[in-house]
Amino acid sequence: MKIDILSLFPEMFDGFLKTSIIKRAIDSQVVDVHIHNFREFADNKHKKVDDYPYGGGQGMVLMCQPIIDCLKTLTTPDSLVILMSPQGQTLHQQLSYQLSLEKHLIFICGHYEGFDERIRDYVDMELSIGDYVLTGGELASMVCCDAIIRLLDGAIREASHEDDSFSQGLLEYPQYTRPYEYDGNCVPDVLMSGHHENIRQWRLEQSLRKTYLKRPDLLKNRVLSDEELKILEKITKKD
Amino acid sequence: MKIDILSLFPEMFDGFLKTSIIKRAIDSQVVDVHIHNFREFADNKHKKVDDYPYGGGQGMVLMCQPIIDCLKTLTTPDSLVILMSPQGQTLHQQLSYQLSLEKHLIFICGHYEGFDERIRDYVDMELSIGDYVLTGGELASMVCCDAIIRLLDGAIREASHEDDSFSQGLLEYPQYTRPYEYDGNCVPDVLMSGHHENIRQWRLEQSLRKTYLKRPDLLKNRVLSDEELKILEKITKKD
Repeated sequence: MKIDILSLFPEMFDGFLKTSIIKRAIDSQVVDVHIHNFREFADNKHKKVDDYPYGGGQGMVLMCQPIIDCLKTLTTPDSLVILMSPQGQTLHQQLSYQLSLEKHLIFICGHYEGFDERIRDYVDMELSIGDYVLTGGELASMVCCDAIIRLLDGAIREASHEDDSFSQGLLEYPQYTRPYEYDGNCVPDVLMSGHHENIRQWRLEQSLRKTYLKRPDLLKNRVLSDEELKILEKITKKD
Repeated sequence: MKIDILSLFPEMFDGFLKTSIIKRAIDSQVVDVHIHNFREFADNKHKKVDDYPYGGGQGMVLMCQPIIDCLKTLTTPDSLVILMSPQGQTLHQQLSYQLSLEKHLIFICGHYEGFDERIRDYVDMELSIGDYVLTGGELASMVCCDAIIRLLDGAIREASHEDDSFSQGLLEYPQYTRPYEYDGNCVPDVLMSGHHENIRQWRLEQSLRKTYLKRPDLLKNRVLSDEELKILEKITKKD
């Protein structure tokens, strides 16, 4: 997969691109990521990228020319142009999967007060990462890239992401590692039993319980198996 | 405000802390941010921070000891300890406001497969930034810090964030800046009129229209004024 990111702050991406799974995915050519400072495409002599809003108002607005001219050097018929925007559809795990099937993603990161509305004519989709306001689209685009890149073949160990929260539509069961006892709290007996089927059942029940208590909305969007329905019935009776 | 972040990848935060509004807020002492690598607190000689999960399963689990010992050096009665986790409540703008009133936030960033369940005993709240899986809590904690820091007094121009999407519970109206015409598309006449009341009305109508079309759920959670109700009635009749 190829990813191009348009941003006025390329240096913000340094740590992200040089760490952990993303670095490994880039090094092993699973993904190719480039950051483009669209200020270089400003056709005015001071390389200005923003200006006052028509009609008045607070702050500055990003001009369309530098962004659109930068875009034109990158887009091919395989490109999906994504504008990071609080007005976009909100990223969720299923959408990450869909986007991970694309060949070429281009992310546009706004900053400051907003951008000229006419940029939207050059965009295939608008994407938000949640209902909160950020100082710019940079972190939001990194979040999207992270969620997408880790799903690409070869980015992380096979099957490693199958246990993730949300991947099965449930929150993850409790995990324990050494020491066996910490501050008086011990690892649950069942996990020490070596009985695989009991462990599997306990984990499923814990997953369902956590999801029921913390995120009941996730259960509504999920087709439950007979086993899950039976466990859920037990949980809801207890509470 | 004081912010401490526990992470195995402190270098991931460099670009974030050195850019734009966050850098300015740190420089002007609006906020004090420190990153702590909890690997330094591991009490084993190889500074190991993770181990295999009890009961089997994919990947490694973060041990509780290094994180809890690091926490103990930082917490005071003023601290709110936040665990970044897909199981947490999801950040939204109102929650950002609430968190911006705290004196001291401590964020714990997990990484890899998860963390020992017993860490949760030392945590005041769990926070997620959305329903998608990330490789770690680092980006998620930056997103939270960004959303919170920009709301602190002195971080950005007064009133500058009052027009943001979500701040009024509506999506933002279209913005335009120079040039007046780009690629055949002109700035709407009303914005060129200089008539402040007409501009205000147009913007409110556009905000309501965008919200109605793209995020109707936001309208449900909002008390609408008489003026807004009247405009909304007009919009819904048209469609």
